[in-house]
Amino acid sequence: MTCNASPDIRQQIAATPELHPSANGPLRNSPIKAVVLTNGDVDHITGLLSLREREAFTLYGTHRILHVLDENSIFRVCDPAIVVRTEFEIGRAVEISGPDGPLGLTVEPFAVPGKVPLYLEDLSNLAANFGADDGDTIALKITAAGSRAVAYYIPGCAHVTEALKSRVSDADVLLFDGTVYYDDEMMREGVGQKTGARMGHISIAGESGSLAAFANVDIKRKIYIHINTTNPILEPGSEAEQTVRAAGWEVGWDGMEIEL
Amino acid sequence: MTCNASPDIRQQIAATPELHPSANGPLRNSPIKAVVLTNGDVDHITGLLSLREREAFTLYGTHRILHVLDENSIFRVCDPAIVVRTEFEIGRAVEISGPDGPLGLTVEPFAVPGKVPLYLEDLSNLAANFGADDGDTIALKITAAGSRAVAYYIPGCAHVTEALKSRVSDADVLLFDGTVYYDDEMMREGVGQKTGARMGHISIAGESGSLAAFANVDIKRKIYIHINTTNPILEPGSEAEQTVRAAGWEVGWDGMEIEL
Repeated sequence: MTCNASPDIRQQIAATPELHPSANGPLRNSPIKAVVLTNGDVDHITGLLSLREREAFTLYGTHRILHVLDENSIFRVCDPAIVVRTEFEIGRAVEISGPDGPLGLTVEPFAVPGKVPLYLEDLSNLAANFGADDGDTIALKITAAGSRAVAYYIPGCAHVTEALKSRVSDADVLLFDGTVYYDDEMMREGVGQKTGARMGHISIAGESGSLAAFANVDIKRKIYIHINTTNPILEPGSEAEQTVRAAGWEVGWDGMEIEL
Repeated sequence: MTCNASPDIRQQIAATPELHPSANGPLRNSPIKAVVLTNGDVDHITGLLSLREREAFTLYGTHRILHVLDENSIFRVCDPAIVVRTEFEIGRAVEISGPDGPLGLTVEPFAVPGKVPLYLEDLSNLAANFGADDGDTIALKITAAGSRAVAYYIPGCAHVTEALKSRVSDADVLLFDGTVYYDDEMMREGVGQKTGARMGHISIAGESGSLAAFANVDIKRKIYIHINTTNPILEPGSEAEQTVRAAGWEVGWDGMEIEL
């Protein structure tokens, strides 16, 4: 999750020539003031390598996730003198700050059932890679200054426990793991041998899928995010897309902005 | 450097609906059949993380460069069972092959004056990071089956030695390090404190720049590549751009295709 300096800064930049980097601002800049990591896997951390080398932002993560970066020499390109790594703790809310101060967002990390990063899997003991609530995969409760609204950001989740359902029952916005619709869809589409479960992702459909799990939880906006290219909800008008919309879910899209 | 299955495969895919992945081909594919690494730094290797996870290609590099990948857990996402890592040797020509066989290109790697990757620098002994011809930074002599043309691909080079000038004197095409025009342009533009020399890149302008170095070398096509965003040759009509064009150089661009 990246936190912009202001919710509509990108629109401002597009609409206001003076704000455009090539006008009179610095030649290299980015509106990203903070990055909150919820996972140490490639799809969550590779983007950091594109924010290098002299771009100041604050990087938040649990000890386990930041340790993955500390142990990997390539992330030294995010110079610690410029990119401040801030460890946060499961269950403790933190006010997110950028290099110039607080950004008006508070996040509280909590662990969800997940998996260690693919490239750090122990292949001799596969079960050891799947922990419940062990801090390798986390989710965020997000609140904004001046608002009572509550959002949950859960991009990866292996299954929905009763505790998780109970926790998100006060949500105004739930952003939830929509990686696969069917657990075996990667195989069906011929793009891989792995099930959603093997990747640490609950499916949307099915008896133990997220649609069923959240059917009776009263949440104002439910949005699927982290959607794999094989997921048929990406195809407008497909049966899958119609099914999730009928159940009150939205399908997230790149560049989506949410106001709390 | 990436080697496509055929020089115009991308145009073929764009123009031929049957070749488009979403038609009747596999849902995930890529025309990239081989990747030749000339450097272990972030701008050369991060793209590998976007070619993951089940895409078959052959990965060529020197022992030193492949060792950088071997030592870094994140590159395990390029599964060794699918992505074959092939070590090549300085001075020994190899015929480049993809998963389905030879691609019609032969490359001969040779060392050029360069630098170890930024994130692997030894800050206690800065000089130790700058080696001449030590194999951390290499260049390629490239020939194509059925052609006598010779191309040289040199995206990073700290300075032009007499040996290098002599080596490339048979070139039909020289693709050369155009990172910076002025050695101190990053500072001039306010985007960084490093000189080109500090980054292991010769400047274009100046007495010891590449324009002067290659002024008397007879090469059919000379093309600047690996051009930094601060380099004024990217600005059409600028004095710098006019200067390099007047000296017979072209300015490379993303998607440029070269036929040998």
